[in-house]
Amino acid sequence: MTKRIIEFKTPPKIIATASVAGKRENEGPLSKKFDIIDETDSFSQDTWEKSESEMQRLAVKKVMEKADMKDENIGALFAGDLTNQCVSSNYGLLDFDIPFFGLYGACSTAAESLTLSALTVGNDIFETAIAVTSSHNCSAERQFRYPLEYGGQHTPTSQWTVTGSGAFIVSKNGKGPIICDVLPGKTVDRGITDINNMGAAMAPAAISTLLRYFKETDSHPSDYDLIATGDLGYEGHRIVKELMLENGYDMGKQYLDCGLIIYDIKKQDMHAGGSGCGCSAIVFASHIYNELCSGKLNNILFIGTGALMSPSSVQQGQSIPGIAHLLHIKGGDI
Amino acid sequence: MTKRIIEFKTPPKIIATASVAGKRENEGPLSKKFDIIDETDSFSQDTWEKSESEMQRLAVKKVMEKADMKDENIGALFAGDLTNQCVSSNYGLLDFDIPFFGLYGACSTAAESLTLSALTVGNDIFETAIAVTSSHNCSAERQFRYPLEYGGQHTPTSQWTVTGSGAFIVSKNGKGPIICDVLPGKTVDRGITDINNMGAAMAPAAISTLLRYFKETDSHPSDYDLIATGDLGYEGHRIVKELMLENGYDMGKQYLDCGLIIYDIKKQDMHAGGSGCGCSAIVFASHIYNELCSGKLNNILFIGTGALMSPSSVQQGQSIPGIAHLLHIKGGDI
Repeated sequence: MTKRIIEFKTPPKIIATASVAGKRENEGPLSKKFDIIDETDSFSQDTWEKSESEMQRLAVKKVMEKADMKDENIGALFAGDLTNQCVSSNYGLLDFDIPFFGLYGACSTAAESLTLSALTVGNDIFETAIAVTSSHNCSAERQFRYPLEYGGQHTPTSQWTVTGSGAFIVSKNGKGPIICDVLPGKTVDRGITDINNMGAAMAPAAISTLLRYFKETDSHPSDYDLIATGDLGYEGHRIVKELMLENGYDMGKQYLDCGLIIYDIKKQDMHAGGSGCGCSAIVFASHIYNELCSGKLNNILFIGTGALMSPSSVQQGQSIPGIAHLLHIKGGDI
Repeated sequence: MTKRIIEFKTPPKIIATASVAGKRENEGPLSKKFDIIDETDSFSQDTWEKSESEMQRLAVKKVMEKADMKDENIGALFAGDLTNQCVSSNYGLLDFDIPFFGLYGACSTAAESLTLSALTVGNDIFETAIAVTSSHNCSAERQFRYPLEYGGQHTPTSQWTVTGSGAFIVSKNGKGPIICDVLPGKTVDRGITDINNMGAAMAPAAISTLLRYFKETDSHPSDYDLIATGDLGYEGHRIVKELMLENGYDMGKQYLDCGLIIYDIKKQDMHAGGSGCGCSAIVFASHIYNELCSGKLNNILFIGTGALMSPSSVQQGQSIPGIAHLLHIKGGDI
């Protein structure tokens, strides 16, 4: 087996994060942990697409303020989202005079952008990079399902696209949790065609990446304080647990999914949980990051999962490929 | 001014390329230079979207054959295209057991994927990476304008999306033209709103990148055998020449645009020239690459330009941002 895990000359640190979230996210268990909230979800814009762009702008502005950095300090922006042609990132980041790399990895984009930030900063290409992603429930519903006005019903296995944007500053200098190594994902297609069950479509990619990681490092789920996938929701989380056990890995209680952490699924009636680029981004940028900094978490795996279909590809009868990028991160009392 | 040009510890080489093209491209001046042609444009698939995926698969398969490489030799695939959610890349590259980074940079994606390949290979992250992009006229027309059956007319300033896919192997080892340095682009928006004049929307980004490059390197257009933008077409090419001259840089006869090289614009009635991720990709992977290898070209700048709007953002009255990534490449008798 070819070794695919990448280590760094100088392990890069996540020195600051920022999270921007909407109404439903603020009603969930992480409510007090987000930096910026808009109860109207509009962020003072007149279309939902512009609202999403504004969330990315606010997230990057906030994270740069926290780290006391200016445009000239940042080597690159690695950014992406779910909208067609990734316009939330393209328009949202126009204010910043920073080199820009547009990404598309569906809900895995938070992990993809962090991976590319870590690769470039950890190998002395940039001193500092910013990873940023977003999703907005209303722009995603219009694009992937139906406009809100249609009042479409969701199936129990469907996930709720999170209204949120998370930004991360990855740097050689400064203090923060350390990205020890990364395992970039490969595309995996196991023939799932149900667009209302994305968790099932993405689970095989998460399993593929986790198995490769545990085998290559000769480690075990119990070696980590937290293994967080994002965002498989209830269905995908259950499939990963079951199939990993069949492969000899008991994922244990430390295995969680960002789509299950962000909402109180039952009280908030959130079907199978949260999803969208913004979900794992804001769960990591707020709750997980805080616990890494405070020392509550010391050694974690963060696995961003994405479903790589489009409405057209599904209409044309194609199954849904998935991908999962993994980051191994160490915290401590920082 | 912050230095933004990136040089490499070990300058990476482009050791092989492959180009896949359609009927109109095969009728143009580069007809004998493409590796794979399908006169039906369908590549034996039953939808245009699947045809585009198949083109990417063929391009990567071909380039790996040329370099005699297997999946385990390749550190990463950097891939993107114009379709919603980049499905041409997602589905087209499923066959390959190689880590995958999905990108979206509109028509700049050929240069974006080459830049990320060069950054990672040139800094010892991967020994070898593949950059691959595609566009297909029929999938692009359906998505960005109208389905072909509608018989919509193009305005004179509109460009023709190229049916093509280009793949590049960037490697530490082996022989081939050398990527000396790169200048990643920044997003630029000068308020252009005409979706039928993308050249004008992208030209300011090309000018921004070229000015930054010439100033930072203290070089001049006459220092290069070829400066190739891709894909501004007739309108954008003219704007770049005029505005660069106003800034004190005569771009000279060595300044060409891939959208003008690929077709015989008048004979083939191609309006303002070619565009699409596949345009600069196949012009570079065939014609320019051959001339770099044979020694006809020795010192070139390749600038991939992208228009970062979506049909929705234009309908919502937003202007069209552009981006331009630059690579400085040296050839010789290889």
